[in-house]
Amino acid sequence: MKVGIIMGSTSDLPVMQKAIDILEHLDITTEVDIVSAHRTPEKLFDYGQHAHTRGINVIIAGAGGAAHLPGMVASLSPLPVIGVPVKSRNSIDGWDSILSILQMPGGVPVATVALDGAQNAGILAAQILGATNTDIRDRIIAYKEELKQKVIQGAKSLQ
Amino acid sequence: MKVGIIMGSTSDLPVMQKAIDILEHLDITTEVDIVSAHRTPEKLFDYGQHAHTRGINVIIAGAGGAAHLPGMVASLSPLPVIGVPVKSRNSIDGWDSILSILQMPGGVPVATVALDGAQNAGILAAQILGATNTDIRDRIIAYKEELKQKVIQGAKSLQ
Amino acid sequence: MKVGIIMGSTSDLPVMQKAIDILEHLDITTEVDIVSAHRTPEKLFDYGQHAHTRGINVIIAGAGGAAHLPGMVASLSPLPVIGVPVKSRNSIDGWDSILSILQMPGGVPVATVALDGAQNAGILAAQILGATNTDIRDRIIAYKEELKQKVIQGAKSLQ
Amino acid sequence: MKVGIIMGSTSDLPVMQKAIDILEHLDITTEVDIVSAHRTPEKLFDYGQHAHTRGINVIIAGAGGAAHLPGMVASLSPLPVIGVPVKSRNSIDGWDSILSILQMPGGVPVATVALDGAQNAGILAAQILGATNTDIRDRIIAYKEELKQKVIQGAKSLQ
Amino acid sequence: MKVGIIMGSTSDLPVMQKAIDILEHLDITTEVDIVSAHRTPEKLFDYGQHAHTRGINVIIAGAGGAAHLPGMVASLSPLPVIGVPVKSRNSIDGWDSILSILQMPGGVPVATVALDGAQNAGILAAQILGATNTDIRDRIIAYKEELKQKVIQGAKSLQ
Amino acid sequence: MKVGIIMGSTSDLPVMQKAIDILEHLDITTEVDIVSAHRTPEKLFDYGQHAHTRGINVIIAGAGGAAHLPGMVASLSPLPVIGVPVKSRNSIDGWDSILSILQMPGGVPVATVALDGAQNAGILAAQILGATNTDIRDRIIAYKEELKQKVIQGAKSLQ
Amino acid sequence: MKVGIIMGSTSDLPVMQKAIDILEHLDITTEVDIVSAHRTPEKLFDYGQHAHTRGINVIIAGAGGAAHLPGMVASLSPLPVIGVPVKSRNSIDGWDSILSILQMPGGVPVATVALDGAQNAGILAAQILGATNTDIRDRIIAYKEELKQKVIQGAKSLQ
Amino acid sequence: MKVGIIMGSTSDLPVMQKAIDILEHLDITTEVDIVSAHRTPEKLFDYGQHAHTRGINVIIAGAGGAAHLPGMVASLSPLPVIGVPVKSRNSIDGWDSILSILQMPGGVPVATVALDGAQNAGILAAQILGATNTDIRDRIIAYKEELKQKVIQGAKSLQ
Repeated sequence: MKVGIIMGSTSDLPVMQKAIDILEHLDITTEVDIVSAHRTPEKLFDYGQHAHTRGINVIIAGAGGAAHLPGMVASLSPLPVIGVPVKSRNSIDGWDSILSILQMPGGVPVATVALDGAQNAGILAAQILGATNTDIRDRIIAYKEELKQKVIQGAKSLQ
Repeated sequence: MKVGIIMGSTSDLPVMQKAIDILEHLDITTEVDIVSAHRTPEKLFDYGQHAHTRGINVIIAGAGGAAHLPGMVASLSPLPVIGVPVKSRNSIDGWDSILSILQMPGGVPVATVALDGAQNAGILAAQILGATNTDIRDRIIAYKEELKQKVIQGAKSLQ
Repeated sequence: MKVGIIMGSTSDLPVMQKAIDILEHLDITTEVDIVSAHRTPEKLFDYGQHAHTRGINVIIAGAGGAAHLPGMVASLSPLPVIGVPVKSRNSIDGWDSILSILQMPGGVPVATVALDGAQNAGILAAQILGATNTDIRDRIIAYKEELKQKVIQGAKSLQ
Repeated sequence: MKVGIIMGSTSDLPVMQKAIDILEHLDITTEVDIVSAHRTPEKLFDYGQHAHTRGINVIIAGAGGAAHLPGMVASLSPLPVIGVPVKSRNSIDGWDSILSILQMPGGVPVATVALDGAQNAGILAAQILGATNTDIRDRIIAYKEELKQKVIQGAKSLQ
Repeated sequence: MKVGIIMGSTSDLPVMQKAIDILEHLDITTEVDIVSAHRTPEKLFDYGQHAHTRGINVIIAGAGGAAHLPGMVASLSPLPVIGVPVKSRNSIDGWDSILSILQMPGGVPVATVALDGAQNAGILAAQILGATNTDIRDRIIAYKEELKQKVIQGAKSLQ
Repeated sequence: MKVGIIMGSTSDLPVMQKAIDILEHLDITTEVDIVSAHRTPEKLFDYGQHAHTRGINVIIAGAGGAAHLPGMVASLSPLPVIGVPVKSRNSIDGWDSILSILQMPGGVPVATVALDGAQNAGILAAQILGATNTDIRDRIIAYKEELKQKVIQGAKSLQ
Repeated sequence: MKVGIIMGSTSDLPVMQKAIDILEHLDITTEVDIVSAHRTPEKLFDYGQHAHTRGINVIIAGAGGAAHLPGMVASLSPLPVIGVPVKSRNSIDGWDSILSILQMPGGVPVATVALDGAQNAGILAAQILGATNTDIRDRIIAYKEELKQKVIQGAKSLQ
Repeated sequence: MKVGIIMGSTSDLPVMQKAIDILEHLDITTEVDIVSAHRTPEKLFDYGQHAHTRGINVIIAGAGGAAHLPGMVASLSPLPVIGVPVKSRNSIDGWDSILSILQMPGGVPVATVALDGAQNAGILAAQILGATNTDIRDRIIAYKEELKQKVIQGAKSLQ
């Protein structure tokens, strides 16, 4: 099982790296690529049409501004697509990225996460694989336990 | 495989019905319930902690205003949770519903769809099951073909 | 010379008709089609790649919500693309349509007009053709004179 | 009488400290803890259900982003809950924190204060205790007099 | 014990009536008046300065647009003031009412509830009185139980 | 003739100084004071009720956040009141200041200028005095000529 | 003394009529005209350059959408200009009208009133004339007393 | 063929320079000037009325805040006008610039590009000239190929 991670530009990598890191932490294979909806539309088409035939199970797509990458890949692929709104340099406080990923028309969903929420995109991709796979689901359960322990430690440090 | 669909109030049913309908159309079993984060917190806890042990694979949660249901279920369950922001009666143009579902903190994702986008929530749930199941994925491919034919018919009607 | 007018759905036609009407009023040929970025991506590709080889000079594209049609056509075509943000049924007061058309990344402009501003899209298309064609420019000058006279008549009716 | 102060993460402490400080200044006992709605839901439940039986009279809850802590505690406790929207690192200018705390559904109020307004949350907690206690109310009256004198000094410095 | 309920205009009464009704339901005495910050500033001053000496324990103030009533009363009174942002006729989707009540400066809190959330203002007033009064707190507990039963009935109606 | 300039706090002085400076430049007398609507309500009342009897002709009031000073002075005084929305430290991008000054109810106008637009408040005060005084109006005409010459110089520097 | 009232289109008249009515009520002469910044720019120029030489003392300008009329008249005239943001048919909830009137650059103020606040524009115009004219100021004082009495009657009707 | 580039102030030059640069890169003649709608209205009028008679084919106008320059030039000229919303120093996150350029009334379009999107304004100007000129269109095609190669290089650098 494999998660495909794409982004519109190498400038999105600092944000998107957190998706790669958490999936590695959860021991899930990733494949990372740059695909620009607006500058390499042919590559976008090829990626969207063939990702599922190449063995990818879930796609994570990050983009900023008028972010068309997640929605266009969702249009082309039958796989679940997770969209990460990136607060890019010229973004209007992130609103443009969020709305152009979230507000997809009926028939073509994009599973949108928080602004710059690439870590959550990675966890969601794992949860999707874990929907029908108890081994991966157990890793999610263990990860949630890690988070809980950190908060409990933080609470102790207060006293 | 089964999709659990919950909502904060029966008043959300007209919106959420579209998730039920499309999943039925895609021949996927659903289980529907009312769970209010703010009025029945014990039921919320019970639902979140045991959904995956009861055979549910994906959860769709719809709520409006300060919509805490999707995020709280995501906090309690290892399953992927899809959040539907409902534009409820007193919502501020839907912004409150969207932001309180979308902007989850690191560690606890909610797969957010468009405002009142319950149909897309249903399709996304099917895509999640189809991530590792080619039979369901084929139904998605067929459904996308249906959508395409409708647009092509619409274009013809123009001439 | 010809203006190509496309929209994501027949439900956008009531808004987009104003572009068709004003171009007819200015005696400029139009070609109208339905092209959905999300439901007919292959048609979108074909349209974007070949519009200029088929004799189209300017493209007007209208879409609502997470409106990807104008930007994706602009990605595929060397022609100037005018985007009309349509306040569709589930749009969040039009903000989603506006931002996902306007906030294009560097390299791929979309000439965005006001929300539901299809009439202005038609006039802008005529002005684009008139940029290097004095006959069409004269029609614009005459049209602006018509507008002025209507306001002057309105002012007289006040007295 | 005692004010319980909770927050979702130790990273909220710099903001929330102002509530602790002003309550100390007003000579009111506080109890501070970290309770994360999303990472420690069991602790949240325990806190909400038992705060009033442990001798707490008012709860102040601070959280950022999709801030569910104040609303969920309000769902579980019969005590008045004051919510502090924290402008956390990934918050969209604070709008997410504000709306997910303020826009509670009918039946479950959260007394919301300004963005990062922890000082006012502390004063409001004191006013709540002073609603039926003239000793504490007198401290509020004295505090308001302090504020007035500072402004009058500021005005004098201008001349 | 008594809750003072004021509003800027009789046109706010349809919204504010819900505060009166729920307090009556919880068997708490109310006193209702019209006080306009902008049209009757002297009455505002008198009200704010003497409410606590007249036996009022909590104040609920509702206003729309540039809503100054809650904040000005909070400036004048040592009592806890609950602000209800009213979506008045010329309000900009309620944003003006919310922000001019919520964003009070340090030192002068207003306990803000949801847009048009007068019912929650009433419940919050009762919770404030119940902060130090177990009889009233028990009524809140009973009321929360009522809410829970309604949701459970709603859930049953689904099956 | 005299312009009264007030602000809620000495922290507003860096912004408000521009009103003082431009009025000095236009040779118009000013009187500057700190008046806090929320911390010195009695001073606010006294100021609003007596400014016109003390020889003040126009009032400029600057405030941030839930900015009640301009509107409350306008409620108390028959003089024209110019409001300057100040983008204070905890302001939500200035929206709170703008809306709580601009959206005054029918009967009590505040002449609102741009965010942090104290310079324009000063010019507007001069224009108000110049409405019926040709000497002051001539200074405005001369000032506008200064502005024009600066732009013309800027244009020359480009070549 | 005379107040010039202009608007971009006869469709703005239902909103702007309230300015005319209140000025008539205050016994102040008005002159009403239609001047479109975008359709009759020459008339705009003429109006702005000569209003003060024709005996007009204050200008009220109402416009919607990208509302340039108030600012452009302010650019051309030394008189105080009051801008009324009109929520026109295609306006985005009024935000476009407000921001394009309010956010004027340094040097060229527009005295902006609330959305559709033409009545307040009329009162403000009277206050401007009353800044240096005690007869008109007395009418303002009487008008404010009328407003107060109406609220007091409303309060009585409650009991 | 020539593109006229104007801006409201020399402070807009750092943003607008990107339009000059890309047009130079595409070998298209430009003419740059400072024209302030609010400070040099006569120059604005002269520019708008005569640009097309002086051999200019397309106008690019950049401005910030209440940005009236693009719309006023569009009102005066029959040429296509491209508007660049500049995020100026006192702009409210760019919303004022965007809305006062984009939301033009029927009859007078402005081709609006992204916030600070001067580079795209330059490309759009070239596309407009290329609408009826295959030589310029070929430069656009070559430029789009350059963009594509950069993304492909970026993708390679990832491996």
